[in-house]
Parts: sequence; C-alpha cells; structure tokens
Amino acid sequence: MIDVDKALEIIKIHKGKFGNEVVPLSQSIGRVLKESWHTDRPLPPYNRVTMDGIAIAHQDFSEGNRRFPLEGIAAAGDPQKEKKETGSCHEVMTGAILPLGCDTVIRYEDITITDGAALINLPDIVKYKNVHDKGSDRILDELIVSPNTIISPAEIGVGASLGKHKVEVAKLPKAIVISTGNELVDIEQKPLAHQIRKSNVYQISTFLNTMGVNYDTAHLDDKKEEIKEQMQKYLEQYDVVLMSGGVSKGKYDFLPAVLEELGAQKLFHKVAQRPGKPFWFGRRGSCTIFAFPGNPISSFMCMHYYFVEWLGESLGLPLRKTQLAALTHSVEFKPDLTYFLEVKISYSSTGLVQATPQKGNGSGDLANLAEADAFIRLPRGKDIFKKGEVYPILIYR
Amino acid sequence: MIDVDKALEIIKIHKGKFGNEVVPLSQSIGRVLKESWHTDRPLPPYNRVTMDGIAIAHQDFSEGNRRFPLEGIAAAGDPQKEKKETGSCHEVMTGAILPLGCDTVIRYEDITITDGAALINLPDIVKYKNVHDKGSDRILDELIVSPNTIISPAEIGVGASLGKHKVEVAKLPKAIVISTGNELVDIEQKPLAHQIRKSNVYQISTFLNTMGVNYDTAHLDDKKEEIKEQMQKYLEQYDVVLMSGGVSKGKYDFLPAVLEELGAQKLFHKVAQRPGKPFWFGRRGSCTIFAFPGNPISSFMCMHYYFVEWLGESLGLPLRKTQLAALTHSVEFKPDLTYFLEVKISYSSTGLVQATPQKGNGSGDLANLAEADAFIRLPRGKDIFKKGEVYPILIYR
Repeated sequence: MIDVDKALEIIKIHKGKFGNEVVPLSQSIGRVLKESWHTDRPLPPYNRVTMDGIAIAHQDFSEGNRRFPLEGIAAAGDPQKEKKETGSCHEVMTGAILPLGCDTVIRYEDITITDGAALINLPDIVKYKNVHDKGSDRILDELIVSPNTIISPAEIGVGASLGKHKVEVAKLPKAIVISTGNELVDIEQKPLAHQIRKSNVYQISTFLNTMGVNYDTAHLDDKKEEIKEQMQKYLEQYDVVLMSGGVSKGKYDFLPAVLEELGAQKLFHKVAQRPGKPFWFGRRGSCTIFAFPGNPISSFMCMHYYFVEWLGESLGLPLRKTQLAALTHSVEFKPDLTYFLEVKISYSSTGLVQATPQKGNGSGDLANLAEADAFIRLPRGKDIFKKGEVYPILIYR
Repeated sequence: MIDVDKALEIIKIHKGKFGNEVVPLSQSIGRVLKESWHTDRPLPPYNRVTMDGIAIAHQDFSEGNRRFPLEGIAAAGDPQKEKKETGSCHEVMTGAILPLGCDTVIRYEDITITDGAALINLPDIVKYKNVHDKGSDRILDELIVSPNTIISPAEIGVGASLGKHKVEVAKLPKAIVISTGNELVDIEQKPLAHQIRKSNVYQISTFLNTMGVNYDTAHLDDKKEEIKEQMQKYLEQYDVVLMSGGVSKGKYDFLPAVLEELGAQKLFHKVAQRPGKPFWFGRRGSCTIFAFPGNPISSFMCMHYYFVEWLGESLGLPLRKTQLAALTHSVEFKPDLTYFLEVKISYSSTGLVQATPQKGNGSGDLANLAEADAFIRLPRGKDIFKKGEVYPILIYR
C-alpha cells in the first residue's frame, strides 16, 4: 500500500502521449493550446479614437482657438482621413483611425455644434486625450498567449483578434469507461432485490464529457475468460481505460490478475486513502489503465484526484493551483490513511474559503455526493483536525 | 445612468421563460433539473456486505466458536443466500446481500481458510461489523436531489442509481450573437490598416457554448435601414439577442434608436461602471436584448456579470455564491463608477483568496484578458482601495 503523494507521482510519470491536432478556433474551447500566439500587428493597429466627438490639433487649442469648423467625418472602418485646414476639426467615432493632422479628441459631451462648427466648452485639454496610441498595448510580434494554456472564452477573443482561425491544440485520449459486476443492471431497468443500477459508468463518462474527452462504454460481468478476451481488445484500441469495480480481495475480483496475465504492468495497487483504497493503476504499451474501486464515492474521488492530474500532465498543463479551505468543524479520523472528506464550500466575508464537513455514511453513500461540493484532503499522521485548520480542497462542481 | 446593482435588479426582473424539456440523463450535464429525485428503494437496498471475507452469526462467535465451516458463497449480484447450520459461515464478497442467518462480516485479512473452514484470528468482533444496513443511508422515497440543481457528474451518478434515465430540465434560450461595425473583418482575413478582426462575437458565442446554449451568429454593418430590417427578424426569431457595438454616442451608433423604433422597450442605457458604461438592455415581446459596448473587455465583463445572472434567474437557479478576495496591492480609481478591475487569483496558505491587479491598458486592451483570470468589483464612493481589503470577485476561467 503506497501513500497518496507517491501514487500521484507514479501517475504523473506515466503520462500519455497523444500528439497535437489543428481545430477551428470556435471549436477549441477547453483545449490546451500547443502554439504561441504573437501579435501580427501592433495593438491597437492605428492611433485609435476612444470616444465619439471631434479630433483637433492640440496646437490650435493651445493658441486660444475654441471654435473649430467641421471639415469631415471619420467613422470606424473608414480609411484614414486627413485634416487639411489649420484650426478645423473632424468628427470622429469610437474605433476610427485618428485623422492625419489631429492628435487630440474631445467628447461630444464637451462641445456644442452650431453652423458647421464645434465650440469647445472646456478650459483645458490634455494633448493626446481620448486617443489610444498605435502599439501602446502591444508591439508587433509580441507574445500574447503561451503554449500549454487552456483556451477559455478570453483566449478565444484574443485569438480571434490575432486571426488565429485555426489553432494547434493537444489531442485528447481515446477513452473507454467500463463497469464490472454481476449485480449491475442498466438504469432503464427495475433492479431485482439483489441488484443495483449502474452509476459509476455514467458519473465517470459525463465527467469525461466536461473535459471534452470522447469515450465508449462497456460492461463486463464477473467471468474471468470473458473479461480477459474483452480487455485484450480494449487495451489495444484505447489510450486510456477507466474501470470501476473488481479490484478488491473478493473471489470474483479478477481484474488485477487478468490485467497482469495480459501483460499489463501494475504500477500500484492500493493507496493509503479513504475512500478509494483498492485503486489499481497500470499500463500496457501506450494504454494507461485506471481500475477504480467499485464504490461510487471511491471512483468519483479517484477520478477527480488522479485522472485529472494524469490528463493535465499528459496534455502539458502547468500544475493545478492548490486551493485551500478552513474547516468549520473539528473532525476526528483515526485510520492511518489520507482522508478525502466530503465538504460543502462557503466564502466568509473576510475572503476565507470555508469547508463544512458532510460526512455521510462512507464510500457507499452516493447520495451524499449531491449534498457536498468538494473533498478536503486531511493528511495521515494525525487523527484530530481542528476547526479553523486549513487543508487542500478539490472542488467538484 | 444607473448603478450596477440597479441594472442587475432590472435584468433579473426581466428574466426569460423558456419552459422545460425531457433529455436523456447522459446528456443532462450542466442543465438545471426541474424535477425532484426521490429514492425508489431504500439505500442500500439490502443489508450489504462491505468487505470480502466471511459472514457469520455473531452469537456463534460470542459462544467461543472460532472455526466456521464454509457452507456457501455469496457474490455481488447473487440472490440472497441462507446459512442453514449453526456455527457455519458463508464466504461473502463486497456488494453481496448478507446471507439470511448472518449478521457480521469478517475480512479475509482476519481469517485463515483450511480444510473447508475459516479460522478467525481476532479476539473480538463487534456485531454487524462490515455490514451496510438496508436503508441506513436513505429510506424509501427520501428526497435526494431538489429541483433547480445544476446537474454535475455527482448528480449524474446519483440519478443513474435512482433509475432517472430521462430527466426533466429547464429549456435553454435560442440565442443569436451579432457583431456590428464597418471596421470589422472575418478572422480568416488580413485586415487593412483601418480594419480590425471580429473578436467579441467569438468570445460571446464560445462562452454561450460553455453554458450549453445554442446560438446563431450574424454581422450588421453600420447602415441604419439594414440594421432595422435584420433586427426585426431577429427579435421575432430568438429568445435572446446578444450584440456588441453601436450603443455609444457616435453618429453611426444606430442601435438604441433602431431598437426603439422596432418597439423594443429600453430598460436601461448606460450603467455607472467601468468597463461597459454604454451597455443597453431592453426587451421586445419575449425577446431579451443585451446590447453590449463594442470594446472587447466591456462586452466580456457584461457577459459574465449580467448575462450569467439573467440566464441563472431565467432557469430558476438559486443565487450564485459570492466569492471574495483580498487585494494584494492598493488600487486608486477616481471616477464615480463601479470598477471591475482585472485580477489574477491566488490562494494563500491560510485559506485566503488573493487578487493581484492586472491593470492593462483599459477596455480596449483585449490581450490583458488572457493575463488575468477574474474581475474584482470595487464599489463607487471610494477612490482608494487598500491592500488587504476584501471585495467580490467574478472568476472567468
């Protein structure tokens, strides 16, 4: 039995390699960028008017001139205009190029227009007012977004403005989610007294959905030869196999043995944690195998804690920021295991993140998941965790 | 010009009504549940074995018996077995029904099996050990998930176990995202000196994507009659119109006038905020209109702050939890406006959320969005915001 940190370290060492692919920008949301984005023009690309009003030469104003005949109009999207007469002005709209011969913009709010001229109602104006200088945000060929960034709507906007209509992103693994166990029936069915409905396979696969990973699903009954035959195929066809159940000490927990018979390398089996102790992790060729315990809270926790880290590492993401929270109640936990306790997160008026324990009834109590929204990670080597103490959290909704 | 809180209040009063629909559970992720989920059986549905090992009658053990002949095996998925002989045991697997006549389970780790009998290597055992009692998590017909919950993978797992293969959820609005402005070109194009590429429409529409909302897109040049003709159609065809640009004081900012000519009710125009001051919000019939300013940071901020609240209110979601963060640096801001400042979020070792200002170059500096990850909301009526002070944040990635 290994420690949680050791398990995580092994998982990260055995990251997958799926290569890169090019997708349209509008379909790249949530993906991991694999190229650098630089400006292809200075930003802004021209001296940009930032207020609707008139553009003048500040020199004319400073010489005492307050009445500026209107010489022309510059709208956003017009080629650059030119002011020809000394002492005149152009009407200008937000987003327009500042006309040649002008350097300062005065808002409509600060002028009166009569008889074809603008009267400025201000005692002073700073030169260059309401002008967004060409290149003042970013120069030409400046790095804007680095590789290994997750593409959010913010990056989409930036990418669009840079003309990145097709972008190179990390490919996602081809996954299969497998349920095991004779006691399981489909969710459309009414279970008999000794049966329960499948739930892990739904939980895991919809979680893959939220990460953009495509998957197939399958079910294996507790029949050793059938498991072996099917698993042989899956290990060849998929980048990652996610299973739940069949990894404990039971007589029909064939999985660890079958996987090893098929040539898979066991990287660890059993982690000093609750829930999720019997977690089995291994690899065959380029296929990574996560064999989670069958208890729904166990597989859910392992998915969020281990699979997410493995995927992030495989795609080249930087380390997740560790979020911490303070316990609102003391907790006692005696076993020498890292304890992932379900908690409900709240935010205090002082900016503190707070975690309220939602203990539930242990790893079989699936309904408790719907009442909590995070796990708090309580370390081994302690059995009292006091109110106010701060530990890492893993928010899952 | 109205205050931010007033604007939000008006937006929430004018929520949309889109009705409900039934979708398969596996496609319900992220949707808002519109039914109650109750248990259709007690949870667990039977006295459930929680460890692989043997099941005995505790009475036999307490009478001094330590050697228990193996009478049968109960696997997960087997109909309930019955122990017939006094002093014997059944091998039992995790997830199995506890055999009739048994009340206690002893793990394989604590027994030795020889000659068809199990020898218990423990001085004491608590009665009912390793048995998860029928109904001890939840009784029959207990409420597990309430209406108006966002369906996350946790709810998917719970729903599957309850047999909710089809679920009633809130329908999402039919949206159109419209860019306006003659200066805009498609992102595949190389802009001329006076042009820029569309970016808001990508930012807004991919953000809708993340919320599961389907949308169409359109572009309108600054031609009043064309805008009017097209808008007439859109106001009839869509539940919500999201536009950017054309709402300022410029000569070609036709939108507010056109919308009113088409019979739309202006609910407000201009909010005392930076960025996003010229934001126009209105309604015609069942169509809600968000006309954001054209500056990319402005439309991005308004989308996250206002549209998300409107959608949440329309779908019946409870209030978003307000997250708060402490400023890591003092900030000065003099205008009498609510200031949505871009910040980078970090987590201190004491559980505090920290916000580091990423000021950038104002509402035109799109690239700055990629460097920050949240807005912090600094109130009006103050112009110095000191390091350590705590304000609400809006995390956008």
